[in-house]
Amino acid sequence: MEGVTFQLIAEDQATRARAGLLHTAHGVVETPVFMPVGTQATVKALTQEMLEELDARIILANTYHLFLRPGEQAIRELGGLHRFMAWERAILTDSGGYQILSLAPLRTVREEGVHFQSHLDGSRHVLTPERAIEIQVALGSDILMVLDECLENPAERVEAERAVHLTTAWARRSKARFEQLRERGHGTSAALFGIIQGSLYPDLRRRSLEELQEIGFDGYAIGGLSVGEEKAAMLDMVEYVAGLMPRDYPRYLMGVGTPADLVRSVQRGVDMFDCVLPTRNARNGQVFTSRGPLNIKNAAYARDPRPLDEDCACRVCRRYSRAYIRHLYASGEILSAILCTYHNVHFYLDTMRKIRQAIVLGNFAEFAQAFLRRYEEGCSAS
Amino acid sequence: MEGVTFQLIAEDQATRARAGLLHTAHGVVETPVFMPVGTQATVKALTQEMLEELDARIILANTYHLFLRPGEQAIRELGGLHRFMAWERAILTDSGGYQILSLAPLRTVREEGVHFQSHLDGSRHVLTPERAIEIQVALGSDILMVLDECLENPAERVEAERAVHLTTAWARRSKARFEQLRERGHGTSAALFGIIQGSLYPDLRRRSLEELQEIGFDGYAIGGLSVGEEKAAMLDMVEYVAGLMPRDYPRYLMGVGTPADLVRSVQRGVDMFDCVLPTRNARNGQVFTSRGPLNIKNAAYARDPRPLDEDCACRVCRRYSRAYIRHLYASGEILSAILCTYHNVHFYLDTMRKIRQAIVLGNFAEFAQAFLRRYEEGCSAS
Repeated sequence: MEGVTFQLIAEDQATRARAGLLHTAHGVVETPVFMPVGTQATVKALTQEMLEELDARIILANTYHLFLRPGEQAIRELGGLHRFMAWERAILTDSGGYQILSLAPLRTVREEGVHFQSHLDGSRHVLTPERAIEIQVALGSDILMVLDECLENPAERVEAERAVHLTTAWARRSKARFEQLRERGHGTSAALFGIIQGSLYPDLRRRSLEELQEIGFDGYAIGGLSVGEEKAAMLDMVEYVAGLMPRDYPRYLMGVGTPADLVRSVQRGVDMFDCVLPTRNARNGQVFTSRGPLNIKNAAYARDPRPLDEDCACRVCRRYSRAYIRHLYASGEILSAILCTYHNVHFYLDTMRKIRQAIVLGNFAEFAQAFLRRYEEGCSAS
Repeated sequence: MEGVTFQLIAEDQATRARAGLLHTAHGVVETPVFMPVGTQATVKALTQEMLEELDARIILANTYHLFLRPGEQAIRELGGLHRFMAWERAILTDSGGYQILSLAPLRTVREEGVHFQSHLDGSRHVLTPERAIEIQVALGSDILMVLDECLENPAERVEAERAVHLTTAWARRSKARFEQLRERGHGTSAALFGIIQGSLYPDLRRRSLEELQEIGFDGYAIGGLSVGEEKAAMLDMVEYVAGLMPRDYPRYLMGVGTPADLVRSVQRGVDMFDCVLPTRNARNGQVFTSRGPLNIKNAAYARDPRPLDEDCACRVCRRYSRAYIRHLYASGEILSAILCTYHNVHFYLDTMRKIRQAIVLGNFAEFAQAFLRRYEEGCSAS
């Protein structure tokens, strides 16, 4: 199969929610989809067998981390990222831009690309839009992201305008290099997504999207949100931008979010998500449940024989008690991270499956309302 | 079923190796057996599902740790240790004596028992032989160990003699309390093992065993070895003591050892083992293979597509490469601990299964020779 194709299956009547299929060379992905984050070629604290059991169809890996360690050359020599990490399902790689901005010391953004020092050993590197594509093609990713400039919030309008300008220029160069490589037979089964920037300025967001569409991508992502702005401002911007995005292409909201954010963003027309919350928070003892988040550190759970989530059918909830997992957490045991991560990823993926089913059955609005009421009552109670 | 019974199935002609069955209220355990160590009610870095998949039939838990956290009262209220940790197979608990001597600050051994401070919060406690039994009965352990006094090596003869004297007195009190509790209907399906002390003094070891046999236990353990003495001295003492131990009772060598130690101790008549090596070393990147240990940190493995052990059929070796696991280790990823522990525990349990099969088939001496040659060639090469 040439490239990645997106097929719309159902559109909700009452909201902008959509259900689709993303066909990749490494399997079919049902959308809306949540992609667990596998920063260093591993979704932290889970085995690949567990990810399969959870029926994760696509995961995200971080170009920045893999470029620094073990390096894309090593991964290419070992047969590409799929073989390296023994994962035969789909992989989306980010471009590395976001990690450079959040992790690397002494970074400088120039027209040419980003100059930065490794957070691991201080070594100096330059990441250009072309190089970001080359690395992702070498990794053998199914979905590549262009290098973009993601600003923090708040951003001055003049800064946001400059970042959109640069992001468009980089997107054009990314696409050109991607096409070149494909002409030489590399990355032929991969897709390339553009990233919309523009901070909280609607007209800049519109301009960014229009410029990207002019270049033409296989999918479009909303970047530069969930970077410190108010939740309502984020959702307003998602609603505005998703409303402008082309109907026949996958829409990916980067780095978002809580379970409630996912439901509300699907309502606004988003198809794809990634976020470290379910995995990172699990390692800190926070688990997500249908009745809101639960902090396993809480002394109230010390003798609680109930599962993490009484309405959950995952392996962890069928077998282990809150009291046991709290003991593991208090004792600094790795099994605490394993069990909480497993449950959280299950909760996220299961929520997405329920969302999708509701869209297909035509009752997504009711599902969303019931889900949010129950989830957010739990949030205020805890 | 009342108590735990031991059934001899086969005795090797050329060596002292034996194959048996240990019938417990939580399943049958084939001996010789290695018991993975689950200090804090978890075998570090493995789920209980993984332990089942590895076909572990019995694990060890540490009374000292569970007494301090979460406390045996909490575990009893939650239905006992099996239900608490969601493990329906057999559990052996140590008495806590060894951990007090190795972990607790400001400990004082008196005739009455051991006074010590918790290594967690400095709180003061007294562990008497009676209390150690009460705790283990509250946990619902299948095999209980008496409180003993384990000396480090080297130990003066007069010290060793005193420790044997105390260990016998404590063993008598342990047995008495165990019987009392059983008369009241507690711990009726459990077994109680005595522990032979005597450092490296053969006559003290003999005296210790004779005194324990006079009291009468369901099994006998060799304690106080692998505490700093030379390997040859340890094996000589195992040979000497195992040669004196009663034929119809399980023989348990505590805290031992490397794969080669296991083979050599089975040769000398031992049935049961526990050791932190496969789990602790896994977390430090050392994996055990049929050709000796392998340190995954080694740069030589950075681009090595082979499995940890080319002769291993475990899930890890069927799926993941040395290069990937080395990357995980170098990146500080939890998955490194999971995969290395899984493989190591598989290697230990699989080695025990092969040992047992060889005993049953009558070719254990050949098996042992071939195993040791191959394993130790690898040790000297690495």
